[in-house]
Amino acid sequence: MALFDLELLSTDRRTSARACRFSTAHGEVDTPVFMPVGTRATVKGVLPQQLSAMGAQVLLANAYHLFLRPGADVVAEAGGLHRFMNWDGVALTDSGGFQIFSLADTLKLTDEGVRFRSIVDGAWHFWSPEDNMRIQEQLGADIIMQLDQCPPYPAERDLVATAVRRSADWAKRCKAAHGREDQALFGIVQGGVHADLRRESVERLCEVGFAGYGIGGYSVGEPHDLMLESLAPVCEVLPADRPRYLMGVGSPTAMLEAIGLGIDMFDCVLPTRTARLGTAFSSEGRLNLRNARFARDHGPLDPACGCETCTGFSRAYLRHLMNTKEMLGAILLSLHNLHFLLDLTRRARSAIESGTYWAFLDEWRSSAAFDDY
Amino acid sequence: MALFDLELLSTDRRTSARACRFSTAHGEVDTPVFMPVGTRATVKGVLPQQLSAMGAQVLLANAYHLFLRPGADVVAEAGGLHRFMNWDGVALTDSGGFQIFSLADTLKLTDEGVRFRSIVDGAWHFWSPEDNMRIQEQLGADIIMQLDQCPPYPAERDLVATAVRRSADWAKRCKAAHGREDQALFGIVQGGVHADLRRESVERLCEVGFAGYGIGGYSVGEPHDLMLESLAPVCEVLPADRPRYLMGVGSPTAMLEAIGLGIDMFDCVLPTRTARLGTAFSSEGRLNLRNARFARDHGPLDPACGCETCTGFSRAYLRHLMNTKEMLGAILLSLHNLHFLLDLTRRARSAIESGTYWAFLDEWRSSAAFDDY
Repeated sequence: MALFDLELLSTDRRTSARACRFSTAHGEVDTPVFMPVGTRATVKGVLPQQLSAMGAQVLLANAYHLFLRPGADVVAEAGGLHRFMNWDGVALTDSGGFQIFSLADTLKLTDEGVRFRSIVDGAWHFWSPEDNMRIQEQLGADIIMQLDQCPPYPAERDLVATAVRRSADWAKRCKAAHGREDQALFGIVQGGVHADLRRESVERLCEVGFAGYGIGGYSVGEPHDLMLESLAPVCEVLPADRPRYLMGVGSPTAMLEAIGLGIDMFDCVLPTRTARLGTAFSSEGRLNLRNARFARDHGPLDPACGCETCTGFSRAYLRHLMNTKEMLGAILLSLHNLHFLLDLTRRARSAIESGTYWAFLDEWRSSAAFDDY
Repeated sequence: MALFDLELLSTDRRTSARACRFSTAHGEVDTPVFMPVGTRATVKGVLPQQLSAMGAQVLLANAYHLFLRPGADVVAEAGGLHRFMNWDGVALTDSGGFQIFSLADTLKLTDEGVRFRSIVDGAWHFWSPEDNMRIQEQLGADIIMQLDQCPPYPAERDLVATAVRRSADWAKRCKAAHGREDQALFGIVQGGVHADLRRESVERLCEVGFAGYGIGGYSVGEPHDLMLESLAPVCEVLPADRPRYLMGVGSPTAMLEAIGLGIDMFDCVLPTRTARLGTAFSSEGRLNLRNARFARDHGPLDPACGCETCTGFSRAYLRHLMNTKEMLGAILLSLHNLHFLLDLTRRARSAIESGTYWAFLDEWRSSAAFDDY
């Protein structure tokens, strides 16, 4: 197979779930895959070696944050993102479009590009789609995302329609500007919760043709059922021979539902962010380890889990660490939460391989963990 | 050899440095040894497994902090300190005497014991030496320290003399109250920078007889040369067949000088505390990784070091992590700083074994790292 070509290995008998594989310059990716987020070239509190050990295949970083600090030129000078952060696996950079629209207090948006202020020092910057490609080429990830316009939720339909058309135009310009053959460029589908705008977005992107397709604009506050309702028709029209990446979604139930619709790739800051607040995913649903009810609970965090945290440390110890604000609490819960999602997608893949993902999903829907959307 | 008996393996030809070994219920300890500090049953930001991997033999925890949170009863219920924190190696608890005197805003001290307020919730507690022994028996470390009175620096000579006598009385009561045969109880030498008071303290403790001797009351702000001057006569009168533990001292140069005087054991929060502030020990002296001069320095942290941090990550990356306040910065610098001190004591031991510690120390004194007292 050529670099980035998608090999379809198995499909479920009753859902649209699929198990695929594609290759990159830094190894193969088996899907469905959960990709830990290392916004500033570090997954918070976790060593790259620990991520390898738990089977992480792809790490994310963010072009917006790395552009501001330490600068894309510094990362390039270090030999690229992989060398800079000591990660031998596959790396993906998001363009930073989402961050510009969600973090910047002031921005000027035209068809030409976007002018925004740095959250670090207030300095003004301008990015055209071409500028963004140059930056992501400097960073050197294996998979890069187009610059897009990501509208908030809720948003006027007209604004969403404009974002769809502008993002499609920028997608075309990104493809024309992008030159590194060792990088896969993904287009990004927008359209909010409007199925017709989503379909229009897909059509426009497919006219250009991309190595893969991100589906953006979700996980911005919309109800989960609205996400799934408008996601289903998107999956139906996306080309079957390209990876589909649902951006920013990584809660256990949302991920499993989306896999059933045919999504291949996920990322989310949830596992590490909630860990820092003392929250753990578990086979019994979320647990808040700051809770006093765990003070004398000497059993493992999740008896069903085989991770380093669950095999070595008790709930009482983790509660003690959170209660005394010790760094190790956030570290151990991050290791567990990441392992939990990686393991969940591995089990999903295994169910797809045996054609019984529908049963796996049914079982999840009736489990204590289902509420963890 | 019986549990805790000290085996003298080698001595230096020109200094009083010595290489020894003693055994505990959780394995042997080879000295000189640096012991990482895990005050609240966690070395900040570092997993027990990472500490094993870098060759840590003994971890410290603190009876004062663990008594307040989570409670010595909770640790006992978990199966003791080792099980609670998932550490298979040797554990040592400090009595918490130092913390009571340095942290408490209000305390009432009598010959009977000390009444103090919790730094957590302001509640009043009373500890007699006997209470303290019961608490440290509940925690279950392999080596425990007597309850002592630790005067500040500078202090009136009379106050220091009183502390020497009270600590010696408490030492006797601790020994009488202590019952666990799988634990070694160490007395603590006080006396500030007064050589005669230090000698008196040693004599009083030796009349009782302990498994080992802590030397307390240093690293409280006194000049380094005053510490070394008053430490030398202490080492001369301490029994040669018992381990000598210089409490709270762990800067590279102070440790190497003290090894030359015949000290066997060290602990210090310095490696992890300075790491969180961005400071690294190195063969070139301390480096402040927050400094902009490292922004484009793509070389290793310390070219002379073989630790995980130095072999995998650049100064520019570490500077980026500190600059963006990423947890991984503190973690990677903690791993390096701990490895640095563990490796330094291993190299010291190796020099003692070949009888040339004097040369090792001379070389250090003329190195760029010497200023790191």
